[in-house]
Amino acid sequence: MTHDLLNGKPGVINVGLEMFADGVRRSGAPLAHLDWRPAGDGDPRLAWTLALLTGDASDAEGTGSRIDRANEKATTRMLAARPVLMDVSLRADAVWPQLWAGGRKTLTHAGAPIPWERMCDPMKGTIIGAMLYEGWAKSPEEAAERLARGEVGFLPNHDIHAVGPMSGAISPSMPVFVVRNATHGNMTYTNFSEGVGRVLRFGAHGPDVIERLKWIAVVLAPAIKTALAGIPDGVDLKAIQSQALLMGDEVHSRNAAATALFHMAIGGALAGSGFDRARAREALDFIAATSQFFLNLSMVASKSIMDATHGVEASSIVTAIARNGVSTAIRVSGLGARWFEAPSDTPVGLFFPGFSQQDANADLGDSAICETAGYGGQSLAASPALVQLVGGSVAQAVEYTREMYHVTWTRNPVMSLPNLEFAGAPAGIDVRKVVDTGIRPVVTTGIAHRLAGTGQIGAGIVRVPMGCFTQALRAMAENLGVSA
Amino acid sequence: MTHDLLNGKPGVINVGLEMFADGVRRSGAPLAHLDWRPAGDGDPRLAWTLALLTGDASDAEGTGSRIDRANEKATTRMLAARPVLMDVSLRADAVWPQLWAGGRKTLTHAGAPIPWERMCDPMKGTIIGAMLYEGWAKSPEEAAERLARGEVGFLPNHDIHAVGPMSGAISPSMPVFVVRNATHGNMTYTNFSEGVGRVLRFGAHGPDVIERLKWIAVVLAPAIKTALAGIPDGVDLKAIQSQALLMGDEVHSRNAAATALFHMAIGGALAGSGFDRARAREALDFIAATSQFFLNLSMVASKSIMDATHGVEASSIVTAIARNGVSTAIRVSGLGARWFEAPSDTPVGLFFPGFSQQDANADLGDSAICETAGYGGQSLAASPALVQLVGGSVAQAVEYTREMYHVTWTRNPVMSLPNLEFAGAPAGIDVRKVVDTGIRPVVTTGIAHRLAGTGQIGAGIVRVPMGCFTQALRAMAENLGVSA
Repeated sequence: MTHDLLNGKPGVINVGLEMFADGVRRSGAPLAHLDWRPAGDGDPRLAWTLALLTGDASDAEGTGSRIDRANEKATTRMLAARPVLMDVSLRADAVWPQLWAGGRKTLTHAGAPIPWERMCDPMKGTIIGAMLYEGWAKSPEEAAERLARGEVGFLPNHDIHAVGPMSGAISPSMPVFVVRNATHGNMTYTNFSEGVGRVLRFGAHGPDVIERLKWIAVVLAPAIKTALAGIPDGVDLKAIQSQALLMGDEVHSRNAAATALFHMAIGGALAGSGFDRARAREALDFIAATSQFFLNLSMVASKSIMDATHGVEASSIVTAIARNGVSTAIRVSGLGARWFEAPSDTPVGLFFPGFSQQDANADLGDSAICETAGYGGQSLAASPALVQLVGGSVAQAVEYTREMYHVTWTRNPVMSLPNLEFAGAPAGIDVRKVVDTGIRPVVTTGIAHRLAGTGQIGAGIVRVPMGCFTQALRAMAENLGVSA
Repeated sequence: MTHDLLNGKPGVINVGLEMFADGVRRSGAPLAHLDWRPAGDGDPRLAWTLALLTGDASDAEGTGSRIDRANEKATTRMLAARPVLMDVSLRADAVWPQLWAGGRKTLTHAGAPIPWERMCDPMKGTIIGAMLYEGWAKSPEEAAERLARGEVGFLPNHDIHAVGPMSGAISPSMPVFVVRNATHGNMTYTNFSEGVGRVLRFGAHGPDVIERLKWIAVVLAPAIKTALAGIPDGVDLKAIQSQALLMGDEVHSRNAAATALFHMAIGGALAGSGFDRARAREALDFIAATSQFFLNLSMVASKSIMDATHGVEASSIVTAIARNGVSTAIRVSGLGARWFEAPSDTPVGLFFPGFSQQDANADLGDSAICETAGYGGQSLAASPALVQLVGGSVAQAVEYTREMYHVTWTRNPVMSLPNLEFAGAPAGIDVRKVVDTGIRPVVTTGIAHRLAGTGQIGAGIVRVPMGCFTQALRAMAENLGVSA
């Protein structure tokens, strides 16, 4: 592995603390930084807990073997899941009465629960925009006042089987995609891509943003709903994801091929329907112009897969990674609805002209659900076009995926990676392996400006905080009656 | 290079004669075969001619420098060409009065001119099918009789700025795509993909084949024509080719991404048009189900580029490679319309179940125009999914492209190859370099059964015969008044 890090050239490999790397970089020597920490995050007691939860495979009665069997069961469900886009619901509240529970106005957001006061600026901007969109306020100022008075309730998307990119807000009258896992029957949901430029998900809420959201509700969503009515078996999202991995997408930060495949899957049905012709063209041309259109669909497919993986007793497989712009949180298959949360890192990568690292908001959005399902950072080897985000060489992109094999339970045979001679992608992040190796899962991500309304300022990668995994490991020990 | 051939492992590299490789293979040792022959194909006089045509770059007045300057001019035109799909002509004879020249029924075919008697069986089957399609005969037997009596004239596609895959036949009432090179203004043409299964281009001519051709004329071609009427700037085919190279296609034997991008380019316009809805859906769903649909468009784009490269005095750049199923022929930029012909090799590769190498017809079709423009075998590194055709490893696919850099004049900056760290693809095959290095250009290709009507039986690679290049080199020496 280290050999590959430096492309076989002599040089310095910096292990662990990034601070030592800077000196080497200044000296001009070739350098690879390996993100490594000691097992148990340097805590001897946690290392001992880890040992108890890992155990010996020869001891079939031991806790380690019990978790192993549970992980085998969980990842078998994961690999068997088959998310299919069945429908569009033209209103979110037709799916979720919870958006009006007790008559109270409610909005959803990305990541673990967070009160209005603690939200980051882009998420606040998004929530204000959702208020304006619903007509719950006439101005941003009025919206902020009402929010400060607690007039609006919040729900994390993940609690209602949904996901949304960046701030991730869904309001009652927004349309949502409806996905069914054809293998296990579970349902998942997501909102629509707004395209590029000034968009709600990055905290913009000007009249242009609200107008585009209305167009999505009135033109785009009904168009796709009409197309889907002409495709009785639905659109197999996992098949599109698998094909796209052979076409340079990792279906998180790059969805160029997946978007084209989706367009091809629905274009005929829409053209053949009775839908208004001019609006049909608007809808199809909007998708064609939005290379990340499939992101929301890749996310909801990943959510479908990971909801099916969730709830296997004693399993240590991570079933969600979600960021609310302040903290990053994970859920674990055998640990119920509980979130294990730690302060988010800030993504590093490439910035659009005029912006730099200091403008970046902390990691934000539900889109890391893609990584839990094996896409995105886990499958970075699939996407040479993204190498600019990670240092520039295809070998580096491949190296990230190689690293991820160390923290995952198995490989996914339907996620074939050409640059690894068609090996299956890493599948099923095991909390134990992350704590054991000290290798934190890598996520490819868009980068939001830390102030609302500016929008996307770059794209790059980020690691999931180790604190999420150490907390989950301790909870697992408690749950299974094992204590160090 | 040799290191890469064996993936760095010790083993045997067999240079030149393939016969010696078999013994090594039987011994089980790792083996790489390097297709190499001595400069001048082992002919001392040709080697001397080559030396006279290569000359010394410091001698600005020498013949070598003159050819170098011509090649620079030719490849500058090649890289600047921008083929755009502008229209569909619903009848080929609206483009070419030559199809009725002197009142005589005329059909086109792939490759260099060849009389009915000498055509291979699949091409004979295709020509009979074209007769039935036009109503020039009521049965295959009647068609064969009329053909034997010389009732029908033939034109090579290349002589009328056209190309067609496999047998490549175009008859007067078939629709054709119309492409304009936006940079240089030249026009090129191709027929429509018939999809998979039993198809005319492989020599099938049953009622199902003829019926599908009628459907193409009545539904598919008018649908695409209607869509194009709604896209005033046309569809930029070179942009699709360039994007597809980043998405796992080499746009000859794999066009999965390019087909999806083409679908996305016209789907909105067709859905927005007044075209009959049911037929619009049929057309779009046919394209979606035909992953090689874009092949004909990649060919006609390549023809557009290479016609613009043709006709530069003293240039030794190859501007066409075409196979009629018996011989392979090349044209050279500075050598006019003359074909340089040699007996075709038979492609080797993977066969569909039930078929083997001995069923394979000799190399067939105009599709090697893609290789002259830098796609296909020249860009094999772009298409890891095709590695099964060339031995199984991505490294081997990359190696073919590396080899092609030795026989080409320059690199194409808009054809970026991720697996070569985004290097430009090899561009502009130089007759002199092929004769000098003994490395024959590699072509990815479908494989036809040697009997008409069976259809495609596999896919693989083939090399262009050295005889084409040695003849061209001698003609070039004559032309330039240089003799050995």
